[in-house]
Amino acid sequence: MKKRLKHTHPGRLITFEGPEGAGKSTQLKLLAGYLEEKGFEVIATREPGGTPLAERLRAVIKAFEGEEKLHNTTELLLIEAARSQHVREVIRPALAAGKIVLCDRYFDSTTAYQGGARGFDAEAIDALNDLAIAECAPDLTLLFDLTPEAGFARTRTRTETQGEHDRFEEEKLEFHRQVRESYLTIAAREPERVRVVAADRPAQEIQTEVRKLVDELIR
Amino acid sequence: MKKRLKHTHPGRLITFEGPEGAGKSTQLKLLAGYLEEKGFEVIATREPGGTPLAERLRAVIKAFEGEEKLHNTTELLLIEAARSQHVREVIRPALAAGKIVLCDRYFDSTTAYQGGARGFDAEAIDALNDLAIAECAPDLTLLFDLTPEAGFARTRTRTETQGEHDRFEEEKLEFHRQVRESYLTIAAREPERVRVVAADRPAQEIQTEVRKLVDELIR
Ligand SMILES: Nc1ncnc2c1ncn2[C@@H]1O[C@H](COP(=O)(O)OP(=O)(O)OP(=O)(O)O)[C@@H](O)[C@H]1O
Ligand SMILES: Nc1ncnc2c1ncn2[C@@H]1O[C@H](COP(=O)(O)OP(=O)(O)OP(=O)(O)O)[C@@H](O)[C@H]1O
Ligand SMILES: [Mg+2]
Ligand SMILES: [Mg+2]
Repeated sequence: MKKRLKHTHPGRLITFEGPEGAGKSTQLKLLAGYLEEKGFEVIATREPGGTPLAERLRAVIKAFEGEEKLHNTTELLLIEAARSQHVREVIRPALAAGKIVLCDRYFDSTTAYQGGARGFDAEAIDALNDLAIAECAPDLTLLFDLTPEAGFARTRTRTETQGEHDRFEEEKLEFHRQVRESYLTIAAREPERVRVVAADRPAQEIQTEVRKLVDELIR
Repeated sequence: MKKRLKHTHPGRLITFEGPEGAGKSTQLKLLAGYLEEKGFEVIATREPGGTPLAERLRAVIKAFEGEEKLHNTTELLLIEAARSQHVREVIRPALAAGKIVLCDRYFDSTTAYQGGARGFDAEAIDALNDLAIAECAPDLTLLFDLTPEAGFARTRTRTETQGEHDRFEEEKLEFHRQVRESYLTIAAREPERVRVVAADRPAQEIQTEVRKLVDELIR
């Protein structure tokens, strides 16, 4: 992977990564409150989404209802289209205005899910990510690390009734193991940018660590 | 540009390219009738579009109504997402089934409009096109060549009342001159695949030439 340059805007971009149920949204909300109390202008946003158009694309990606299958390549290109719009409409203007942008998932999700777990060519994904982000690389990425089993246990109540793992569940577990491995590979490659935060702890304890990492960045 | 391999399906893909008003849709319809009479199974389709999902993306690309601007990079990625879906749902299955696919615009439009006229990096566009088409390169591309002035004269009645050219019109003319130049560059690079057809003639005369070129391909 070639090295991404740092952006030159006065603002800061902090991204939240990790598997489903890791606590990204919970931690983002707690951090936003903390930073606002400190007097920073904070933009809390998410991917895919973050603009009306990108949210429309998110709806297509998340639940396309039609006769046709959403092909993996199409999904990847739609994710990058949503990202392209989100960066140019929301993230870049906010960074230019000196704000702190907190983004729930960003390009590392694409590397981990479409690349690591779905097996898309890593170089192709890097190139698409670069095209989409318009040089707005994150200043800090918080990777909330959790085993797929623990993540499922947290989100299970949201989606299904408890029960024994079936074959589909096993496939899902294997998929999420690959996602986790891919995330940890990214963190190992870019230790400066990506900080691994153990997510199998009480939310307040995690937030204390998050604030410490963020304080280092913004002081 | 690196050379694209020919596809290995029994069917044939013929694409129709050229500026607005060149007569692509007119010629495609006439050719479809001719091939059907000859007993071929013909699929007539268009880009962006060709599947319910891709048509939804076309609507976003053609007339996004919202507060936000559709950024050029987003547009490019949406075009490629629509293409990815169209190829995998319609074009590739039809080619695999031995059909003749007639497609109104395809990846050369992206090269000419987004690349030639909007100035996107040609290599990036080639890479996106390759990702989208899943190795379904056209067997024959008919490039209907027409000056922008002549094209405008034909489509003017569709969109506006006649009048003197204003600055916006001039910009449009310059844009379409670049589109034309870019198309002719593609044809010069790939003379085997891309045939230039002079479009400033009566439709029937053009169709006679089109049928000759197609007969060579399918006999
Ligand atoms: N540290 C924690 N310990 C236990 N449960 C937690 C913790 N943090 C969050 N939760 C709970 O786990 C669930 C998932 O949390 P959250 O929505 O923040 O995760 P997420 O990473 O944003 O998930 P998704 O990727 O699905 O959006 C929620 O029910 C939340 O209350
Ligand atoms: N050879 C021709 N000579 C004169 N007029 C023509 C000719 N072919 C088509 N036209 C007319 O020009 C207009 C544009 O034709 P057509 O819709 O086929 O072009 P097109 O290339 O598909 O345009 P677009 O890119 O806008 O879809 C139509 O009104 C059509 O009837
Ligand atoms: Mg969440
Ligand atoms: Mg047409």
